[in-house]
Amino acid sequence: MSVTTKIATSTAEDVFVRGKSLCRDLIGKLSFTEMTYLQVTGRMPTKAQTAVIDACLVTLMEHGLTPSTLAARMVSSSAPEAIQGAVAAGILAVGSVFVGTVEGCAALLVRIGAAADANDEAKRIAEEHRATKTPVPGFGHPQHKPDDPRSAVVLRIASAEGLAGKHVSALRVLAVAIDEVYGRHITINATGAVAAALADADVPIDVMRGFAILARCAGLVGHIAEERERPAMRAIWEAADQAVPYRDE
Amino acid sequence: MSVTTKIATSTAEDVFVRGKSLCRDLIGKLSFTEMTYLQVTGRMPTKAQTAVIDACLVTLMEHGLTPSTLAARMVSSSAPEAIQGAVAAGILAVGSVFVGTVEGCAALLVRIGAAADANDEAKRIAEEHRATKTPVPGFGHPQHKPDDPRSAVVLRIASAEGLAGKHVSALRVLAVAIDEVYGRHITINATGAVAAALADADVPIDVMRGFAILARCAGLVGHIAEERERPAMRAIWEAADQAVPYRDE
Amino acid sequence: MSVTTKIATSTAEDVFVRGKSLCRDLIGKLSFTEMTYLQVTGRMPTKAQTAVIDACLVTLMEHGLTPSTLAARMVSSSAPEAIQGAVAAGILAVGSVFVGTVEGCAALLVRIGAAADANDEAKRIAEEHRATKTPVPGFGHPQHKPDDPRSAVVLRIASAEGLAGKHVSALRVLAVAIDEVYGRHITINATGAVAAALADADVPIDVMRGFAILARCAGLVGHIAEERERPAMRAIWEAADQAVPYRDE
Amino acid sequence: MSVTTKIATSTAEDVFVRGKSLCRDLIGKLSFTEMTYLQVTGRMPTKAQTAVIDACLVTLMEHGLTPSTLAARMVSSSAPEAIQGAVAAGILAVGSVFVGTVEGCAALLVRIGAAADANDEAKRIAEEHRATKTPVPGFGHPQHKPDDPRSAVVLRIASAEGLAGKHVSALRVLAVAIDEVYGRHITINATGAVAAALADADVPIDVMRGFAILARCAGLVGHIAEERERPAMRAIWEAADQAVPYRDE
Repeated sequence: MSVTTKIATSTAEDVFVRGKSLCRDLIGKLSFTEMTYLQVTGRMPTKAQTAVIDACLVTLMEHGLTPSTLAARMVSSSAPEAIQGAVAAGILAVGSVFVGTVEGCAALLVRIGAAADANDEAKRIAEEHRATKTPVPGFGHPQHKPDDPRSAVVLRIASAEGLAGKHVSALRVLAVAIDEVYGRHITINATGAVAAALADADVPIDVMRGFAILARCAGLVGHIAEERERPAMRAIWEAADQAVPYRDE
Repeated sequence: MSVTTKIATSTAEDVFVRGKSLCRDLIGKLSFTEMTYLQVTGRMPTKAQTAVIDACLVTLMEHGLTPSTLAARMVSSSAPEAIQGAVAAGILAVGSVFVGTVEGCAALLVRIGAAADANDEAKRIAEEHRATKTPVPGFGHPQHKPDDPRSAVVLRIASAEGLAGKHVSALRVLAVAIDEVYGRHITINATGAVAAALADADVPIDVMRGFAILARCAGLVGHIAEERERPAMRAIWEAADQAVPYRDE
Repeated sequence: MSVTTKIATSTAEDVFVRGKSLCRDLIGKLSFTEMTYLQVTGRMPTKAQTAVIDACLVTLMEHGLTPSTLAARMVSSSAPEAIQGAVAAGILAVGSVFVGTVEGCAALLVRIGAAADANDEAKRIAEEHRATKTPVPGFGHPQHKPDDPRSAVVLRIASAEGLAGKHVSALRVLAVAIDEVYGRHITINATGAVAAALADADVPIDVMRGFAILARCAGLVGHIAEERERPAMRAIWEAADQAVPYRDE
Repeated sequence: MSVTTKIATSTAEDVFVRGKSLCRDLIGKLSFTEMTYLQVTGRMPTKAQTAVIDACLVTLMEHGLTPSTLAARMVSSSAPEAIQGAVAAGILAVGSVFVGTVEGCAALLVRIGAAADANDEAKRIAEEHRATKTPVPGFGHPQHKPDDPRSAVVLRIASAEGLAGKHVSALRVLAVAIDEVYGRHITINATGAVAAALADADVPIDVMRGFAILARCAGLVGHIAEERERPAMRAIWEAADQAVPYRDE
């Protein structure tokens, strides 16, 4: 077998990550965000890339009591012996429906970028989703109406850092097409803006969900810390039990 | 390194588990419960052992909307692409607080069995827990009062199968000591009865939580199937959100 | 919200699962396999269904040191405080590539069953997979050649129990089409036979992966028990490290 | 029930985390590391705290092909449909044996800090571990001898930032006691230095494992990205299979 890894190796005196000395070049020299980008892509990020990625991770970290944090709190209070289990349970909820939509949205942006006519492709995408009554990933929000306030901030930072490129453009084209096809305004939501910004910051599309997971991982640690201090599990359990009563039909 | 595995191997024509031919000796010959016992212990169970283990697994499978099934439902509706993630999240909640207590209870029973005077040891255990206000694993239930109805059934089956041995005896001794020390009747709960019955059915103490996990695994598949058909996730989310409001103190 | 659950409820005196009294009708009356079917589908299985499901669960339980059991062993030796974490890690590997293929295969069998001409549809399926160089789920095995010995046993049991119906027929039609289209014999593997047998035993297609997960759950408990007794983690780690060396290209 | 959450809330126009406006005060203003500290503790970190936490997260992120990354790679290649499952599997391995030792070490440092005589307490700790042949968490490394190079760098940064306080002092006292009691030099390893540095940066002891999990989460995304591009799973599987042969004793 000739499979190899390019990520890390070590000697008695040092550890090398992506060819760089952990002790001389990385610890104390890089922020966690910069190190993450290096670890995942093998490339050192620019200041602008780091700023955009930081903004995206900060945006995605926390959304209150969501399915993901509820799962983590249930596990934390049931198995306090293993905080890693609670974090893992919360991460398992970063799937195709909520935060994981960054990946679905990014795929659409790539598709628009590769099309001969961006406007046509965007309209086609909107129509496909409308026909199948599937929500367009990266668009719409039940509470943030008419517009998700986080999206504007993320996109403004991408522009300010000189990194708003073809994916941000594709997102804007898609937003216009969606409003037109659906006949009403549907907001670009936080994951939509993050998908475009991360793609233009050169985060690979196919591990973008990994960045979303990382942001949520930090958010989950906060919820688990609170759950340990002032357990909400029994209140949630009771509320759920009443909200979903037994009925033998 | 000379580490080996004793569990399984295979040839082009067959698979061998614990030294037996999967195709000739196991498929169609053993129930799932019997095969589980063989897989975990390397020994073939007797009819009586199988009956007791079946009773215990049936007892533990389902408890309604608990933290474990809530976690699984949250993940199932958030990441429908991966049913294994939803099952895993639910299993992560089988920890030291709920179903995992079988292990904690079994450890107490072993301690009583090994003591010079069982009654003294049982009293000591009850006093230790009372002093530290720690619930005794295997005892007490918020709803099933004065007695958990499942415990009587499980213990009756262990007796009927001729397998009520030293662990069931230790459980009864402990129950008497607890009522005396606490000055009121506290029921043997389902996990307490299961702990004693499984131990007397020769299920190793240190993988007993594994049997509890297996039982709950089947229960979780049922909840995930229902969650897919008639999603409860949003109702639970909303109820939890109202039960645990934001307060910036 | 008017979402309800049909699975379970309880009173002080009893627990009811799928409308039946846990204490009077289920514990001691049903095997774990029967109870699982009731829990998941809401229906009581026949003797024949139980026999086929038992055979399928026994078939899938154990495959030696596979990615799934390796993941569980890594976690078990790293976090011995939480056996549930090790089981969960192993279950997360029951995905679309290995055991989870039961679901993919069952979907093909349903497609054949619904087609106007079964032979044509089977040929179309074989051709699609050949053209895209995608393995047909439920077919082929690197070691069991020319035929997976488990498949014959599972299908024989389905026939003997009078349950070999339209899905088993569809599997046989597909097998003929595959040999023809690929120009060589490709075996029905264990997950293919299990998919057909479970479908004909009336296990719903969309939770079939749940049954595979359950079978593997029992297998994982066995590997974790062995890993605790005689840890293989360091030997595996070292072997992996040598098999996948660092190379800074 | 009067349980509340202090973490987050939202309106149509904004999201508030820990009482601050996500859109005005956080996105684009805070690095991911700063936001994590705010999320978990409710307090804004100083520049010095951020520098130390960044250094610790960078230190822990990557250790090559370890049990944790092996588990993640096994799951990634088995269930490519769900990257969150692979990350979760890797995180489940951050337990009491490896990276999770930060928590165990921090607990010892707190104990030394609270003792009447630090030297005596440190000696007692060393003797306890020696007597029970338990490794002291935060000490010793099979490869980095005589000293773990990462520890020196982390501790130097804590000093340079003016944050080397009582926990770093306790670590040094413990190091002296260990060398004396064991009669040979045992290095402070990376998790030992990180435990002291994080504690002195005012990261709460009981969620410290959460920070370790976060660091590893980023590392895991890197391994999963590589596993997707150039799968090592089969090479690892084969190597493991040969390293741990079947033996029916």
